[in-house]
Amino acid sequence: MSQAKANIGVIGLAVMGSNLARNLASREGNTVAVFNRSYEKTETLLSEHPEAEFVPAKTYEEFAASLTTPRTAIIMVQAGRGTDAVIDELTRVFEPGDIIVDGGNALFTDTIRREKAVRETGINFVGAGISGGEEGALKGPSIMPGGSAEAWQTLGPILEGIAAVAEGEPCVTHVGTDGAGHFVKMIHNGIEYADMQLIAEAYDLIRRGTGKSPAEIADVFAEWNRGDLESYLIEITAEVLRQVDAETGQPLVDVILDQAGAKGTGAWTVKSALDLGIPVSGIAEAVFARSLSSKPAQRAAAGDLPGPEAAWAVDDADAFIEDVRLALYASKIVAYSQGFDEIIAGAQEYGWEIEKGEVAKLWRGGCIIRARFLNRITEAYAEDPELVALLTAPFFREVLVGGQEAWRRVVVAATQAGIPAPAFSSSLAYYDGLRAERLPAALVQGQRDFFGAHTYKRVDKEGTFHTLWSGDRSEISAVDSH
Amino acid sequence: MSQAKANIGVIGLAVMGSNLARNLASREGNTVAVFNRSYEKTETLLSEHPEAEFVPAKTYEEFAASLTTPRTAIIMVQAGRGTDAVIDELTRVFEPGDIIVDGGNALFTDTIRREKAVRETGINFVGAGISGGEEGALKGPSIMPGGSAEAWQTLGPILEGIAAVAEGEPCVTHVGTDGAGHFVKMIHNGIEYADMQLIAEAYDLIRRGTGKSPAEIADVFAEWNRGDLESYLIEITAEVLRQVDAETGQPLVDVILDQAGAKGTGAWTVKSALDLGIPVSGIAEAVFARSLSSKPAQRAAAGDLPGPEAAWAVDDADAFIEDVRLALYASKIVAYSQGFDEIIAGAQEYGWEIEKGEVAKLWRGGCIIRARFLNRITEAYAEDPELVALLTAPFFREVLVGGQEAWRRVVVAATQAGIPAPAFSSSLAYYDGLRAERLPAALVQGQRDFFGAHTYKRVDKEGTFHTLWSGDRSEISAVDSH
Repeated sequence: MSQAKANIGVIGLAVMGSNLARNLASREGNTVAVFNRSYEKTETLLSEHPEAEFVPAKTYEEFAASLTTPRTAIIMVQAGRGTDAVIDELTRVFEPGDIIVDGGNALFTDTIRREKAVRETGINFVGAGISGGEEGALKGPSIMPGGSAEAWQTLGPILEGIAAVAEGEPCVTHVGTDGAGHFVKMIHNGIEYADMQLIAEAYDLIRRGTGKSPAEIADVFAEWNRGDLESYLIEITAEVLRQVDAETGQPLVDVILDQAGAKGTGAWTVKSALDLGIPVSGIAEAVFARSLSSKPAQRAAAGDLPGPEAAWAVDDADAFIEDVRLALYASKIVAYSQGFDEIIAGAQEYGWEIEKGEVAKLWRGGCIIRARFLNRITEAYAEDPELVALLTAPFFREVLVGGQEAWRRVVVAATQAGIPAPAFSSSLAYYDGLRAERLPAALVQGQRDFFGAHTYKRVDKEGTFHTLWSGDRSEISAVDSH
Repeated sequence: MSQAKANIGVIGLAVMGSNLARNLASREGNTVAVFNRSYEKTETLLSEHPEAEFVPAKTYEEFAASLTTPRTAIIMVQAGRGTDAVIDELTRVFEPGDIIVDGGNALFTDTIRREKAVRETGINFVGAGISGGEEGALKGPSIMPGGSAEAWQTLGPILEGIAAVAEGEPCVTHVGTDGAGHFVKMIHNGIEYADMQLIAEAYDLIRRGTGKSPAEIADVFAEWNRGDLESYLIEITAEVLRQVDAETGQPLVDVILDQAGAKGTGAWTVKSALDLGIPVSGIAEAVFARSLSSKPAQRAAAGDLPGPEAAWAVDDADAFIEDVRLALYASKIVAYSQGFDEIIAGAQEYGWEIEKGEVAKLWRGGCIIRARFLNRITEAYAEDPELVALLTAPFFREVLVGGQEAWRRVVVAATQAGIPAPAFSSSLAYYDGLRAERLPAALVQGQRDFFGAHTYKRVDKEGTFHTLWSGDRSEISAVDSH
């Protein structure tokens, strides 16, 4: 049709969608078709941003007609049923070879299902995780697209144009087929939960142990942001801690109610890890810490449970702060190591070829967990693509060698002082578990064999065995029951 | 029909089903119809147990005809599709008013789905959790039936006849409607995971800290089993630790491969808790400890990561063992408190009226977590049915008052010695989190508001707020985004 002039479309013009459309329109060569269920939002976008070259559509038919082929549209609506409804409409008006991108925060299993269904029509479906919030959508997000390699041919250049840039490279790459993009975005969010909880524990321990004010602790974080821990979350932590509430003159962090919310992607990460048999204890403790905080009735009832009698203050504030820094670094390595374990297991389970080093690279800019640290992960996988556990890579090993005693001191201090540090202590327990020569899991296997005849294996020979616990207690060979 | 003479039937004659059928047949007044997909197993059961009055059936039609009305049959097949296939057959040959019981280890959401579907036919469907393993099935299990009150009228007396008896009461009660029984069974299993992991950590710490042999530690557990910790799991731990491997002369626990298996119900408990927003950190750490143990390649790669330099030995073995006992007791209270939180949240979410005290009572016998301790839970809920957190009940509070310093010493010792105690330390962190007056969740809310405009609440007034972080950093009232 004659009016087909847009090379990319955006559906759903709430803040994220509008910002992404503006980002697209600001790039050389793009003309952006826009559509929203209620046309009012489309009009608002057009009137507020006359500088951008948008092609508005009132119907799906108009929207499709305004796009050059292969038509390419990014859906930016609330994840869930709304997404399915839009996909239905687009598959109706699009043609084989066209590309539907879901840029929402979809659960990867939904993306796998949708990709399969849409593929039947000959249309390409790409689930793309987009991180960076509203500002990222506007100025350059980190983008994690799945879907087919064919779709990536068309889509790649467009997304490379709007993604964040880190060290000269756009923070977008074809992660893998079907749900791989949304899976990796989910892991990103899980790591984000852990990272935030670790930072919160670090702040809490420094404040209680040294008596420093939030503003003084802001300086500590600002200082950390000039070293190994340099990252967006450390940077904004300093900003939040420095903020003074205009109304009360108190530090804002003391005025904010201490009940953390959650939108569910951390829980998704843990649930998927449970399905895959991957211990992501640091992420789980972070999710649980938020839900615990949001139980005011329980917290009120437990408020007078006893803690340590002695008041706590560290002898040497600077030394303690350095210990906390090292504990944070070490715990963060554990969180990433667990997250990449889940990526490896997910790739195997769902049939994706995911380049771990590329994933770390595309998180370097635009997204919430962007950090200097990520280059070390890329290097680790470049050096050994078959690395079985990230924390055993030479660079991280060195960090752990240098930090593990400090990490222990911090967990000991928290434990003795009665200050909850679930993510610090869980990460350390994971570390000690992974490096243990023998684990008491052998006793658990003995118990399971006793009460449920679940059998066990032996250290000294092949096979599966069962002790006749209710009989003469001799050992027999058994069929492996699980 | 003239041949209808059985009052109860069992379908699926593997070990659990056969044992349950024998248990039923051994009770006065029962005649037990039996059916298995391959008739061979039915014949084996009949020939091996001529003492039991079984009515064998070769087809579902025969099976139905052999039962008096209302027909009542317990399905004891592998959970999953097999169960659905049997249900299809039974709904075909049964009539309205009859009762189908699923005694397998079904996921409660499957039970909710099945109950709804079967109810349409006028037949009753009861999902019943059965705990106690093969021996329990034969001699008296703990039974957790859901389903309708109408079905319970018929089913109750039969199940009361075969259940374990604790302090004169049968360990079975109508837990709630549809999936309530399997839900409570799932929580039972989750608590079992935590309990086993805590016992394993206690053993490991005592062994490494005191140098005692497994047989000597068996004596410690046997001694504990005469006190507050009296329970089946403590009892069998002593048995397992005392066992000597005939082939090597070594303690069996040293010959068993230290990689723990799992059948998934622990993971179900954690996944459901994540859906319900309930922190079940103790159970999660137990599940993760098993999956960590079963990663031999990772463990091998991490084997030379550094730990504490100094060798560890406690000064006073008896004092340390008593500390570990108190830590185990306190951590166990946390695991149960988290498990009951999940029951309360599940009951609210899925519309069940679950008597928490009755649940604790029916776990007193027959099942894996049976323990003296459970009477204290029943008492706590009798005293205060609206108790918001089990660990705040007066009795448990006293235990925690008496034990929290010992608990800290044990976690500190493990941390300093580099011995993984994830369940001990996670439980303590949860305890300290719940009793904390302020949590750094306030900082997490500040971070979330900064990067995602997720808003926050204030401690000093109603409403929802957002700071214009990218603007002039003033605070505005906001619509609660989550």
